[in-house]
Amino acid sequence: MKIAILGYGVVGSGAYEILKNYGYDVKWVLDIRPHEELGSVLTSNYDDILNDKEVTVVAEAIGGLEPAHTIVVKALKAGKHVVSSNKHLICQYYEELHNLATENGVTIRFTSAVGGGIPWLYNLRRSVRCDEISKVMGIMNGTTNFILDAMISDSRDFDEVLKEAQALGYAEANPSADIDGLDVARKTAISASVAFNTIIKEENVDVFSMRYIQKCDIDYICKRLGTIRYMGFGIKDKDSVSVFVEPTILPLGAPESTVCKNFNMITLFGKSVGRLSFFGQGAGKYPTGNALAQDIIDVMSNCSYIQPLQTSLNVDNDKQLRAYYIRTTSVLDVPYTTYEVIDGYNYYITSKLSVSKAHALAKQIQEKDPAMFVAGIEE
Amino acid sequence: MKIAILGYGVVGSGAYEILKNYGYDVKWVLDIRPHEELGSVLTSNYDDILNDKEVTVVAEAIGGLEPAHTIVVKALKAGKHVVSSNKHLICQYYEELHNLATENGVTIRFTSAVGGGIPWLYNLRRSVRCDEISKVMGIMNGTTNFILDAMISDSRDFDEVLKEAQALGYAEANPSADIDGLDVARKTAISASVAFNTIIKEENVDVFSMRYIQKCDIDYICKRLGTIRYMGFGIKDKDSVSVFVEPTILPLGAPESTVCKNFNMITLFGKSVGRLSFFGQGAGKYPTGNALAQDIIDVMSNCSYIQPLQTSLNVDNDKQLRAYYIRTTSVLDVPYTTYEVIDGYNYYITSKLSVSKAHALAKQIQEKDPAMFVAGIEE
Repeated sequence: MKIAILGYGVVGSGAYEILKNYGYDVKWVLDIRPHEELGSVLTSNYDDILNDKEVTVVAEAIGGLEPAHTIVVKALKAGKHVVSSNKHLICQYYEELHNLATENGVTIRFTSAVGGGIPWLYNLRRSVRCDEISKVMGIMNGTTNFILDAMISDSRDFDEVLKEAQALGYAEANPSADIDGLDVARKTAISASVAFNTIIKEENVDVFSMRYIQKCDIDYICKRLGTIRYMGFGIKDKDSVSVFVEPTILPLGAPESTVCKNFNMITLFGKSVGRLSFFGQGAGKYPTGNALAQDIIDVMSNCSYIQPLQTSLNVDNDKQLRAYYIRTTSVLDVPYTTYEVIDGYNYYITSKLSVSKAHALAKQIQEKDPAMFVAGIEE
Repeated sequence: MKIAILGYGVVGSGAYEILKNYGYDVKWVLDIRPHEELGSVLTSNYDDILNDKEVTVVAEAIGGLEPAHTIVVKALKAGKHVVSSNKHLICQYYEELHNLATENGVTIRFTSAVGGGIPWLYNLRRSVRCDEISKVMGIMNGTTNFILDAMISDSRDFDEVLKEAQALGYAEANPSADIDGLDVARKTAISASVAFNTIIKEENVDVFSMRYIQKCDIDYICKRLGTIRYMGFGIKDKDSVSVFVEPTILPLGAPESTVCKNFNMITLFGKSVGRLSFFGQGAGKYPTGNALAQDIIDVMSNCSYIQPLQTSLNVDNDKQLRAYYIRTTSVLDVPYTTYEVIDGYNYYITSKLSVSKAHALAKQIQEKDPAMFVAGIEE
């Protein structure tokens, strides 16, 4: 049983070093760039790997949709187990890849695609074997958590902290995928798909960006309501699932309130196990490389649980009701429990609204007041 | 592949219900008490199980050393996998049972022995496969956490909260095993044994009780230092391991500071994965039953990693240095960074002492001042 790693970037090279240190046989690394240190292990020709009968596990750490998708499909059809750290690929093609794996009697694993070094998806899948998951939620993005944590701890403003995060390499030059929620939406869709054994696409997820938060929001929330994090949620309700991403206000005692810097915390609620939370490094060469390596070792030791997908669940964000915090210059016609005017801003705590209504309302308010901010309130 | 559950108490019956609900074949339940609902599944004769070739996994939920030990040894010798929730048994006989399992080509698993529903030991063992663990620590006892949380939240005194915990069934009539640290010492010894792949006995663990804490300690600690929990630690230092249990002062932002009521949080520090914490229900019929059931399912799906034990590590609590909080009526000859007298008590924050020195000192002080209290300070 030998291993091939596809892509020698941050995660691929991290997994390679870890597997080598522990005596696992990585026979090939696929990369188009030169890497002296890899010697004859390096190839730029995928056929070397596909045609190598000794290679039973292929670990994809290329990222993006193509060529990753074509490459992974070929591996599954060649009867090789696939492990991937590619959330974009899994979110887009989960059903196809799951079915291809089943047809070819192999496994596909992607723990490292969500939560970096945290064995979240692995444990979630393990829980599902003999428990009924009612809810998954979490802080799944280190960049946005770093920004919110810094804004709260040092009471600084968004733009300033974002610049620092970019300087420190925690945020991309174009931070949109992180701060506008696409990254969390994909991780939430994947988590909910595994938790509820169904298919949830990123376009099913209601998302509100966190980029509109200001110092005045932090001041109001921390003084009156608790604290705030950027979170994804998947909540089951009989035959439907609510899946959404939004800035989320939590009581100060909530475990999430201690998640600092770029750490992540992801939680499941099971009928028999109750609340189970996983806290750790949500990104990085060695943490995420470790998660990729662990999946590879699991596959090699036959720890695989393939479940038939049940696609009867559809996404319906009308089902979940929660109160929302809204800060805007507009005067709103919305049922509320608290209304205050401070320094020219209207602050509302709404009565309970459905997630879909709240997100639609937010977009509506934004047309008149682009700087408005909204956050869901988690009880 | 069929399952036998030994002991139909809280955990055994919880696991039984969960496994039945998910279609797993529990052929036998061993119990000397009558249980109408079990019908012909119930037996009081262990030979029915030992001699049953269909039974490949035996789950021990009897508790205590005997007859559990004799029964588990017989099962391993009969070539049956063993899953146990019995921390006393595992702590006492880990080496013997591990070796017996290896000799007979079967597995022994005991995730539910530490942390109730939290898949802590399972994930710790998984981490060890390709990471170097430097430290394990955690809140592993719900009773003591319930008491400390209530004392802090409602600023009440120890005796009063203990009585409430007993009334609620969170504490035993004789609470010593919980509040004097034996329960945590066993769980810490088992965790450190798995983390460092060695054998640590409960008698190797330096333990200080939490029963001497008073309202004035909570007031001092919460006002000046952060918060306090009752924790176990296993810390590696080259060729030795420090293993100890003590009341532990943590900064307010520490993840442990949000662990309320009878919840547990257990953490590993890995060279590549970094900090990884697991939070959940540390006890209870369904959470612990779930952990027992998950181990059974793992064994049935061949998810087992047997490692040869390396016993070269010895326990040496001189290696770990930390500052200590001491409250006593005595005047101490100890190096300190802070010394205050409040209401007739001397409050010391010591300079860094070795764990063994500090625990020896505490016992010494207690001879003159039985009501004194000491806590380690975790940075």
